[in-house]
Amino acid sequence: MTDSWVNHAGRTGSDLHLNLDWNPAGGGSRRAVLGRALREAIREGRLPPGTRLPPYRSLAADLGLARNTVAETYAELVAEGWLTARQGAGTQVAPRATPAAPPRVPDLVPPPPRPPAHDLRQGLPDASAFPRTAWLAAARRALTAAPHEAFGPGDPRGRPELRRALAGYLSRVRGVRTSPDTIVVCSGVAHALRLLFDGDVLRGPLAVESYGLPFHRSVLEAARVRTVPLTLDEHGAHTHDLTAHPGVRAALLTPAHQFPTGGSLHPRRRAAAVDWARATGGVVLEDDYDGEFRYDREPVGAVQGLDPQHVVHLGSLSKSLSPALRLGWMVLPDHLVEPVLRAKGEREAWAGVTDQLTLADFIESGHYDRHVRRTRQRYRDRRDRLVALLARRAPHITPTGIAAGLHAVLHLPPGTERSVTRAAARQRIAVDPLAAFRHPAAAMTAHDGLVVGYAAPPDHRLEAALDALCGILPPPP
Amino acid sequence: MTDSWVNHAGRTGSDLHLNLDWNPAGGGSRRAVLGRALREAIREGRLPPGTRLPPYRSLAADLGLARNTVAETYAELVAEGWLTARQGAGTQVAPRATPAAPPRVPDLVPPPPRPPAHDLRQGLPDASAFPRTAWLAAARRALTAAPHEAFGPGDPRGRPELRRALAGYLSRVRGVRTSPDTIVVCSGVAHALRLLFDGDVLRGPLAVESYGLPFHRSVLEAARVRTVPLTLDEHGAHTHDLTAHPGVRAALLTPAHQFPTGGSLHPRRRAAAVDWARATGGVVLEDDYDGEFRYDREPVGAVQGLDPQHVVHLGSLSKSLSPALRLGWMVLPDHLVEPVLRAKGEREAWAGVTDQLTLADFIESGHYDRHVRRTRQRYRDRRDRLVALLARRAPHITPTGIAAGLHAVLHLPPGTERSVTRAAARQRIAVDPLAAFRHPAAAMTAHDGLVVGYAAPPDHRLEAALDALCGILPPPP
Repeated sequence: MTDSWVNHAGRTGSDLHLNLDWNPAGGGSRRAVLGRALREAIREGRLPPGTRLPPYRSLAADLGLARNTVAETYAELVAEGWLTARQGAGTQVAPRATPAAPPRVPDLVPPPPRPPAHDLRQGLPDASAFPRTAWLAAARRALTAAPHEAFGPGDPRGRPELRRALAGYLSRVRGVRTSPDTIVVCSGVAHALRLLFDGDVLRGPLAVESYGLPFHRSVLEAARVRTVPLTLDEHGAHTHDLTAHPGVRAALLTPAHQFPTGGSLHPRRRAAAVDWARATGGVVLEDDYDGEFRYDREPVGAVQGLDPQHVVHLGSLSKSLSPALRLGWMVLPDHLVEPVLRAKGEREAWAGVTDQLTLADFIESGHYDRHVRRTRQRYRDRRDRLVALLARRAPHITPTGIAAGLHAVLHLPPGTERSVTRAAARQRIAVDPLAAFRHPAAAMTAHDGLVVGYAAPPDHRLEAALDALCGILPPPP
Repeated sequence: MTDSWVNHAGRTGSDLHLNLDWNPAGGGSRRAVLGRALREAIREGRLPPGTRLPPYRSLAADLGLARNTVAETYAELVAEGWLTARQGAGTQVAPRATPAAPPRVPDLVPPPPRPPAHDLRQGLPDASAFPRTAWLAAARRALTAAPHEAFGPGDPRGRPELRRALAGYLSRVRGVRTSPDTIVVCSGVAHALRLLFDGDVLRGPLAVESYGLPFHRSVLEAARVRTVPLTLDEHGAHTHDLTAHPGVRAALLTPAHQFPTGGSLHPRRRAAAVDWARATGGVVLEDDYDGEFRYDREPVGAVQGLDPQHVVHLGSLSKSLSPALRLGWMVLPDHLVEPVLRAKGEREAWAGVTDQLTLADFIESGHYDRHVRRTRQRYRDRRDRLVALLARRAPHITPTGIAAGLHAVLHLPPGTERSVTRAAARQRIAVDPLAAFRHPAAAMTAHDGLVVGYAAPPDHRLEAALDALCGILPPPP
């Protein structure tokens, strides 16, 4: 870009410095260039408020522009509030167009914290495993085939193509009993909770598990929903305690793989949850956050299959593809479909149509199954490496919850969780203490532990990350 | 798909009908097929609760399966709650696995209303104009070039690539003064309002224009924000009245093209809005919903350029590309960046990464400008056809607000709006009466009118739509 500077000594006696580049990178007519230059000069204080501009005729002559060009530019800047034009007083820089303080941008957002040396946080899939080529191919097929109306205002239920694909997939893989009409697309499980509770579809108090995602709790708190923690053990939540809380009408559970402690909800407890919902008119919210990632046998089917009229089944792409896609789904009992759509509003307000169409094709073409199979194998290998390393280097530390998912819980000797967490911080190992997931009102005994996600580190750094982790574990008693 | 039916006379005396298709379309191992068939039989009531299943050995022999296959399938269904297994009692269908009532799906969601014969609703761009090929090419470039971390949990501000592209574009085209650090990506203007008010970044009461989007008002009502209507005329909102409402600390305006009445905010009123914000510490919310679509001269620059520290500039792709993309942005004063990020949460919860990356490329590669130019020409032609037709067939009806945007207001003789609206409904012409946009507490005189969107009908149907519209207009007085 070439800068051409023009000095103009107007009747104001001040120089008019304009940065006039007639062939700017950004493009634009001569009028646009002149307008930009004037705005810039006013912004930067080179033309202070009250400054009288030269009459358009003389500026036009000086710059070798048509008079109209300058006159129109002046009119435009008057319309925008930069200049004022009054009969007799000529054209002046408007009083409020004072230069803003120089932008304080560098201070604005705290600089991103130094990235951890090793990232063993839960909930992060392997970002490098995103199947870009297959996804783009699905996008091409899907966007080419989509009807024009797909680019109009969206159906609040989500694209029919996607709801059809999900109904088939969830029935086949997760034993969910549904039809496209009872599926509502959303941007993830947290969004689903927001719609259900902020939209007054369901009311609290809500039973939750004594350990769970703090993020979900804050969504619920923002919606002013009181949560009642259920005790947990290796067989999942004590759903038989639900009847002890007569006000509770909904229960949020992670039946396939309790988050984060890792148990699978015991058959009797699945039955107890459904029985409770039937007896009280309650609703079980089944957060199936990593239902596809079970390693040692076929995945446990969804609780929803036991009673679709009393269970809301929630899922998303966050673990299976990427949390950055912001795409999830709710499988609803019949009577909740309309209330959820009312809460959502008359148009789709969240989930973008291109990803919806692409995912529909990605599922129908078999690429989703293939991707899940491939990543499952990868995560299973990683889990095996973690387990083997622990057996060798810290045999007194038991990992649990390893039959599924992308994380394990390492049980620590009582009283050591805080010192281990501090050691992790010192070594810049990003890993969460079990306490971070505990409900503040939980009554059950707290155990010391670390929640170790093993999916996020790139393959070539996993060994080093696990090594570093073993280095901070407490010695055998 | 071939169905193979096997009858098994178990010790229960009842036939066990299993729909066993060993090569199902959905794929799966023999164990998966058997599990599916058993679940289906239980669901459909063919295996009622309490039914004793044959011992796994005999079923295996009957079906020619390995014993392990059947034993594992039983165990799986026990884990899922479909079956119970007790020492001595064998394997039975669980008591709560009663068949659900057949799904009431067909009644669930009211059938979509019969589509209108002619769609002249405002706010809908031409869905057939979505640039699929260019968008897919941008997606390919963007997704191929993106770093792996793009598919990890998203930055709540939005992708840096997109914020950089938007900062350049908005500065060049709309005169917005910003840097990538003060832009926060969201899913649209309504989402921005939600974040600002539901997230307690700003507080009400909020001054709004006496005519505006009902959808925005309902977002604000849901956030319990009281709105105070400002009177409007052809020069936009009476912003000089802002000082008369001492409690008000924010004002939502549509300066480039008042929605829906169509005026452009007068320079003195732009100045008054900014002066008010400076004097009171207030904030102007500039909804730049169709800022790119001005037909008769260069677009009026954004008010934000006058004072970036007192104006929040809001925009989206809804008019320029498609409302189905769910992508928008907020350009924030420095002091609001952190509160908005706090309201948004630690991860991006809404806007998908693929569209963010694609839009960044679409802007930087010049395709966005090209698309806007092309559609602007198209919409201008449509507007000209509307104006010409009215001049010929209903010269007593004045269209206003036609200098920009995708809609016009047709002013009707006093007292005729309701009958015209009823006539439109009878003829299945989808078009909104002006009254639909009026703030319930507006004090200004109500005028009769129709808000006519001319962008949505496909090209070959526009003539017929406008013809039908002329047919319901009141005759000359």
